[in-house]
Amino acid sequence: MTLDKGDTMHKHDFLGISDLSKAEIQGILSVAHAMKAPEAHAKALAGKHVLTLFFEPSTRTKMSFDTALNRLGASKSSIQLESSSVKKGETLFDTVQNLSAFGFDGMIVRHAHAGAPHFIAKHVPASIINAGDGFHEHPTQALLDCFTMQEKSGSVEKKNILILGDILHSRVARSNILTLTKLGAQVFVAGPPTLIPSQITEMGVTIIPNLDAAIPHMDIINCLRIQYERQDLGYFPSIREYRQHFGLTAKRLAQAKPSLTILHPGPMNRGIEIDSEVADGPQNVILDQVKNGVFVRMAILLKTLHPAYFAALETQI
Amino acid sequence: MTLDKGDTMHKHDFLGISDLSKAEIQGILSVAHAMKAPEAHAKALAGKHVLTLFFEPSTRTKMSFDTALNRLGASKSSIQLESSSVKKGETLFDTVQNLSAFGFDGMIVRHAHAGAPHFIAKHVPASIINAGDGFHEHPTQALLDCFTMQEKSGSVEKKNILILGDILHSRVARSNILTLTKLGAQVFVAGPPTLIPSQITEMGVTIIPNLDAAIPHMDIINCLRIQYERQDLGYFPSIREYRQHFGLTAKRLAQAKPSLTILHPGPMNRGIEIDSEVADGPQNVILDQVKNGVFVRMAILLKTLHPAYFAALETQI
Amino acid sequence: MTLDKGDTMHKHDFLGISDLSKAEIQGILSVAHAMKAPEAHAKALAGKHVLTLFFEPSTRTKMSFDTALNRLGASKSSIQLESSSVKKGETLFDTVQNLSAFGFDGMIVRHAHAGAPHFIAKHVPASIINAGDGFHEHPTQALLDCFTMQEKSGSVEKKNILILGDILHSRVARSNILTLTKLGAQVFVAGPPTLIPSQITEMGVTIIPNLDAAIPHMDIINCLRIQYERQDLGYFPSIREYRQHFGLTAKRLAQAKPSLTILHPGPMNRGIEIDSEVADGPQNVILDQVKNGVFVRMAILLKTLHPAYFAALETQI
Repeated sequence: MTLDKGDTMHKHDFLGISDLSKAEIQGILSVAHAMKAPEAHAKALAGKHVLTLFFEPSTRTKMSFDTALNRLGASKSSIQLESSSVKKGETLFDTVQNLSAFGFDGMIVRHAHAGAPHFIAKHVPASIINAGDGFHEHPTQALLDCFTMQEKSGSVEKKNILILGDILHSRVARSNILTLTKLGAQVFVAGPPTLIPSQITEMGVTIIPNLDAAIPHMDIINCLRIQYERQDLGYFPSIREYRQHFGLTAKRLAQAKPSLTILHPGPMNRGIEIDSEVADGPQNVILDQVKNGVFVRMAILLKTLHPAYFAALETQI
Repeated sequence: MTLDKGDTMHKHDFLGISDLSKAEIQGILSVAHAMKAPEAHAKALAGKHVLTLFFEPSTRTKMSFDTALNRLGASKSSIQLESSSVKKGETLFDTVQNLSAFGFDGMIVRHAHAGAPHFIAKHVPASIINAGDGFHEHPTQALLDCFTMQEKSGSVEKKNILILGDILHSRVARSNILTLTKLGAQVFVAGPPTLIPSQITEMGVTIIPNLDAAIPHMDIINCLRIQYERQDLGYFPSIREYRQHFGLTAKRLAQAKPSLTILHPGPMNRGIEIDSEVADGPQNVILDQVKNGVFVRMAILLKTLHPAYFAALETQI
Repeated sequence: MTLDKGDTMHKHDFLGISDLSKAEIQGILSVAHAMKAPEAHAKALAGKHVLTLFFEPSTRTKMSFDTALNRLGASKSSIQLESSSVKKGETLFDTVQNLSAFGFDGMIVRHAHAGAPHFIAKHVPASIINAGDGFHEHPTQALLDCFTMQEKSGSVEKKNILILGDILHSRVARSNILTLTKLGAQVFVAGPPTLIPSQITEMGVTIIPNLDAAIPHMDIINCLRIQYERQDLGYFPSIREYRQHFGLTAKRLAQAKPSLTILHPGPMNRGIEIDSEVADGPQNVILDQVKNGVFVRMAILLKTLHPAYFAALETQI
């Protein structure tokens, strides 16, 4: 077998927010706006063959990418594998080398282990898009969150933005922090002390000790989803106590700015991290996030698979 | 979250035969005929994005819709969920709101609960097509049955048509009765008394007490599939007894008109509700039903997703 | 039901290498070369509807056909069934008759029973492509193997080619032998005596009793995958002993020609039938096999579904 390191000359991976400059982030968000008229781009990726390679189950992210690929006229293949079945690097290597040999132009990768998309990117000629790797990054989610914040609140620069919940295990939180700090926002985090790593401050965020005191100052809250299994592992005492201290209840939000915007990556645990009254209220933009996710992923697909097309759109705007 | 009731101005749901006039039924059947030359319509739904959202497993109906969508050039997404996981209206609401946010033009919905497609139709801007809801309606099946009857026997007006089997639990039976009575057929039902609801006569059908006496008068028999689990629930004594009293055996059909047409929604339980001798005989049009199902669903997709295209075809004919 | 024997006038099945002449094999391999520039053929099968009908699980072969269909612009449907659920010919008959009624132009069939694709071919108007039937044939794999051999070693005529492993249960071995002997190669087989049927010599191959003595004479080795369950059935004593006697180790290959080419249908059991040192060495062409599989299957799809297009390409070359 030829140990092909990939024709890295002509590929454009999209692996994490940490690789992007402020200007590149702004470029993607601009092109995403242009995607709101998708008919104009229905053949932009015609003739491109893209594999969604998910080592973790996903319905929402996969459907968002599928929709984006459909709207750009790309052809799609899909495979769902178990992370556990490819524990050894060697076997993951064989798997992706074999899949790569089918000649895909791009692969959209989700994996339970941090760094897996980067490992794959080094060994195949296809452009790799990170759709979530372990507790590391989920860059497309962060950009769609940012896009939605801008749409609702204008520029995020100097805005006070709170990320609330399990920061420790959240790739969404990490990618959000990277994106928002690069764009000049004031980013805060809050949650059970066991779920807030103290070194998170090195990323330029402030840990909030008293949620209720902080809420009146916030312009935007990104409320993370609670994973029930963390409770059993002792990260927080009970769901009930979680709601009491960190849940977005109507009572707690009574002190918030009228202009407060609330995001949630979905699906929501109503009555736990967010109350139905809030979830169904005018501040919540979860459906906008879903809708915008398609536009942002279209922009990222263009940037990785047809950079000239992306660049032309960026210039026009 | 914005409680979006859907942009109901520009959508066209297809929820049940009960909503259709005789002229509308005839219009769909006419346009279905035009679909027999599918090459002419290969791009009719290009740029339209359609979700098949099935809360019950289905192979045949899903493949029929998929084929229809392919032939019209629509782009497809698909999701299979459990009815049980969305028992609460609230959660079904969240699920469909989220799926709707991906921006589908249409959703083809099958659900174990009567009325679920109607509930969804109220809350999303996409056009909803009912692909079977509980024991309520299965309107696309009824129209393909009717199309096949007309193809084989000419107009169904004044024809004697028998629906045979488990009427109580059959959405196929209900939608057939609605369609055929609107078109002026004489509709009869027969089956084990426990499976024939007495109020069915309010739909304009006649209950047949003696199957063998009635058979010589029938022009068409639509033979329903027996669900084995009904036996365990005590609806009929045994499979053997079912076959003896209600099975379409060659002996029983010896008294039928030579022109008798037999339909079955498939898959057939050979030797139970229908004998192989009959199933493989010239009266049986089950394969025509499958083939016509694609044409009829193409017509319904055009009517819901591109009404102007549908109207133009209807006028031509 | 009309017992339709299929409109066999206008269909072109691809069922096995045994049906092909030397010239036909060469024609397919030539057209496969033309498929290396797939952009030129992106609409060759536009308007054709193809079903992949797999009665055995498969990831690699299915993805290869899917990619080939995508690159030719065909529309795809897919169904995965259990061979066991259609044990009776009658039920397999009903299943394929029903699927056929959807109007597919072609069906790509994999089945655990030898002859199943041939049975289906007799009863449906769609063109049938055999994607592997029991221990009988896997003709597309054999042609992609042959294509890869030619690409690496030039013509296979008079080349010494060894097929190594479980010959008894291998449809890949059978189809390889048929292909390579038709093209004038000298074909040898080796493996545990329990897994080498003695009547295999009737196919024109030579059984090698001493692998190590034969290796220096070989130009090409096609190393089959070992199925672990054969060990439990007593076909060979242990995995360790298999490797010792028949594994492609670096030590064993030290005596081979420098130009030796090694094929493997994948996925490899590293450290069993092939050592990692060999698997990752320059002699191994497994990734070329995967890549070429798409081109060869594109050629076969054109030959079966658009023979005029295939013939025009064949003439040009």
